[in-house]
Amino acid sequence: MTLETLQAELEHVLEKGEPEEIGHFLDQQNISDVAELIYTVPEHDASIIMYMSIHRASGVFKILETLTQQDIIQKLPPEKTAELLNELPPDDRTSLLEDLPGSVVRELIKLLNPEERKITLSLLGYPENSVGRLMTPDYVYVYENNTVQQVLDVIRRVGKNSETIDVIYVINEKGELLDDIRIREFILASPNQKVLELMDDRVIALNAYADQEEANEAFKMNNRVALPVVSNSNKLLGIVTIDDILWVATEEFSEDIQKIGGTEALDQPYLEISLLQLFKKRVVWIIVLFIGELITISAMHQFEDEIAKVVLLATFIPLIISSGGNSGSQAATLVIQAMALREVSIADWWTIMRREIISGLLLGLTLCILGIAVISIWHSLSHTFGEYYLSVAFTIGISLMGVVLWGTLVGSMLPLILKRLGADPAASSTPFVATLVDVTGLIIYFSVALLILKGKLL
Amino acid sequence: MTLETLQAELEHVLEKGEPEEIGHFLDQQNISDVAELIYTVPEHDASIIMYMSIHRASGVFKILETLTQQDIIQKLPPEKTAELLNELPPDDRTSLLEDLPGSVVRELIKLLNPEERKITLSLLGYPENSVGRLMTPDYVYVYENNTVQQVLDVIRRVGKNSETIDVIYVINEKGELLDDIRIREFILASPNQKVLELMDDRVIALNAYADQEEANEAFKMNNRVALPVVSNSNKLLGIVTIDDILWVATEEFSEDIQKIGGTEALDQPYLEISLLQLFKKRVVWIIVLFIGELITISAMHQFEDEIAKVVLLATFIPLIISSGGNSGSQAATLVIQAMALREVSIADWWTIMRREIISGLLLGLTLCILGIAVISIWHSLSHTFGEYYLSVAFTIGISLMGVVLWGTLVGSMLPLILKRLGADPAASSTPFVATLVDVTGLIIYFSVALLILKGKLL
Repeated sequence: MTLETLQAELEHVLEKGEPEEIGHFLDQQNISDVAELIYTVPEHDASIIMYMSIHRASGVFKILETLTQQDIIQKLPPEKTAELLNELPPDDRTSLLEDLPGSVVRELIKLLNPEERKITLSLLGYPENSVGRLMTPDYVYVYENNTVQQVLDVIRRVGKNSETIDVIYVINEKGELLDDIRIREFILASPNQKVLELMDDRVIALNAYADQEEANEAFKMNNRVALPVVSNSNKLLGIVTIDDILWVATEEFSEDIQKIGGTEALDQPYLEISLLQLFKKRVVWIIVLFIGELITISAMHQFEDEIAKVVLLATFIPLIISSGGNSGSQAATLVIQAMALREVSIADWWTIMRREIISGLLLGLTLCILGIAVISIWHSLSHTFGEYYLSVAFTIGISLMGVVLWGTLVGSMLPLILKRLGADPAASSTPFVATLVDVTGLIIYFSVALLILKGKLL
Repeated sequence: MTLETLQAELEHVLEKGEPEEIGHFLDQQNISDVAELIYTVPEHDASIIMYMSIHRASGVFKILETLTQQDIIQKLPPEKTAELLNELPPDDRTSLLEDLPGSVVRELIKLLNPEERKITLSLLGYPENSVGRLMTPDYVYVYENNTVQQVLDVIRRVGKNSETIDVIYVINEKGELLDDIRIREFILASPNQKVLELMDDRVIALNAYADQEEANEAFKMNNRVALPVVSNSNKLLGIVTIDDILWVATEEFSEDIQKIGGTEALDQPYLEISLLQLFKKRVVWIIVLFIGELITISAMHQFEDEIAKVVLLATFIPLIISSGGNSGSQAATLVIQAMALREVSIADWWTIMRREIISGLLLGLTLCILGIAVISIWHSLSHTFGEYYLSVAFTIGISLMGVVLWGTLVGSMLPLILKRLGADPAASSTPFVATLVDVTGLIIYFSVALLILKGKLL
């Protein structure tokens, strides 16, 4: 069924206004389709959530965009909000509360039943971007002396409420994690076997205080659908499921991309963010870069006499500084991306520097040769560059060489330096690197010009 | 146990040289630890794979970097390669073969047993980046008339070989997909119930020819660990598991980031790619951008008379063109990222353009005011900018306004235009946009200067 027909049907049943029929209609659709419907008819968003059975409503609610979630929470009557919050898996509830202002959070937490309140408050206690914030305490645990039959009984009893029972966790009496066993192992085993016999003692656990990036890495390497989260003393606290990691991965990469492009991370989809917010996220970096670029005025000012003597020199300024910026952007982006994927760390700085010096030399040499060739050919066709055209060509070529090497070096080292200082490497955005290289590019250019053209043109 | 102790122990058992002991030692370690060991002692990589039990060897092998995989394949004796290839899950085998040269692939496919060969060849038949290339045919299917007891028997019989039996697929006699049911449902149900009774008819399936990005989206929205893949006629062909999607997501984002930074996608980790390859991936764009930037020489050449008259004008060139480049980079990156996440599509071009015109006006106005203020204050402190300093200030301010608006517009529309032309939007990298905006920035600047300074300085 297409979204259009669904929407038509929804409006049809909404018009008839019979709650039961509306609820029945909505409960028959896919969760992702209902989410789409909410985006198409935002005026009915709260009604749609109201009419659905609470379990499915929570399924829809948790995949909605944050802004839509907040809109719905505002429209729902308090008792329905309470019901919804109580039904949401703890990890989704935590991420909703994280995005709300503190005062609203306090009000909403009051709506939770005491048990859920305790869980939420404890999840909110972990640092932002930590594994603790992603975990859910809805998991199934058994003891090593249980039999397979006992485990199956436990699954039947608590399975309905647990976020994932594809994996069962084995703990001891102290609550320490011993092993994780996929549910299929229990189905394949005979009912009288002990859990102990199924254990392989190869358990991968995440620390609740670890960075969410680590969780991403662990999932990629270990082929699991859920990983257990433990305290510093190896006590089992909860689990993280792989679908939450997919969201985290997307979010982290989006933030990196936006920072590389020279804006603050948007936090919201492009079309949903208000124009004022969009402006705010961009203007800060635009102003910072502008102020950085003001230094070029000073630099240019120093060379005004030279430009006055040889106006031709001004002609090549955009070419020279852009080439530095381009090579710097390349190097910075490659290093930022490699750091994000943990392919390189600060400790590799010397290897990276060596590689980038060679790359910079090669790229610089390429542009040097190309520059000299282009100017020579250009001159032979149109006699644009005057008597000393060859000296001019070599000035440009050697400057390109220097600027590209310098740009590559700055671009590759800046993310590492930022990381070392505790800042986000992605903040060394391509515009930032380009701006940094502009000033030094001018100095390199005019120094080379003075050296080569002294006594000829200057 | 730390990696160092593991490595010491490994070298100890390797020295003793008793195959059984080595195998036993390796089989006791975590798969991810063994992978780490292989990276630490690359000279033993093939031996480590040789000594492990074949099932675990394949588990390690499939999470290794492509280069290491290829290195191992080269070192292993053919019969061991055959054993390993046959043991690898079909999706991992396909992705290994994809990265090898055609002649090697033909040799390796010969090593497969007929059944595995058929599977591999069929997976290789789907277009690159399609869901078909990710799928594995190792799934468990049942019919709607089966009882729960029958299903559990099927699971016990075939479960050992299936990549994931967390989800069971219901098909009809024609092989068409009817529903997917999580294994927990069968454990929670009574043995005499029919599969039919457990079905909710809400199945999300991926088309084998769909783009892998769609699979990513479907997983994020639907909270599943595996999704079924169907043909155009809804026949069940295989399944895709979420861990493969995590790899795809990382890869796609890395490619986008690298392209945004103005290089070709590296395909390999930064430290593993050879310097020559690294140079090749970068030099193409550096040359393209250089050639684009050559146009600035022509543009500057047109304005040499003006610069000769008012050298001061040259002073502001880097500031003006960089501001255009910066605003263009921001806009391009935001749109590329929103397109990658499918938040916007070509159809939204008008909405995007409206938003970017307003953003560009606001950002331009900010820099305009800032520029006029800075030059006025600067002049009042140092009398740098001569008699007509206010006219100069307005020239710079209005030029900034125009250049930023233009940069924002070009940056936001270029990814959409590239997409429309069938190219990758991420190719409208920040250096590319900056270069495009440089030429037009110069023209805007000198046109404004002629307009305002005519009769005063010009």
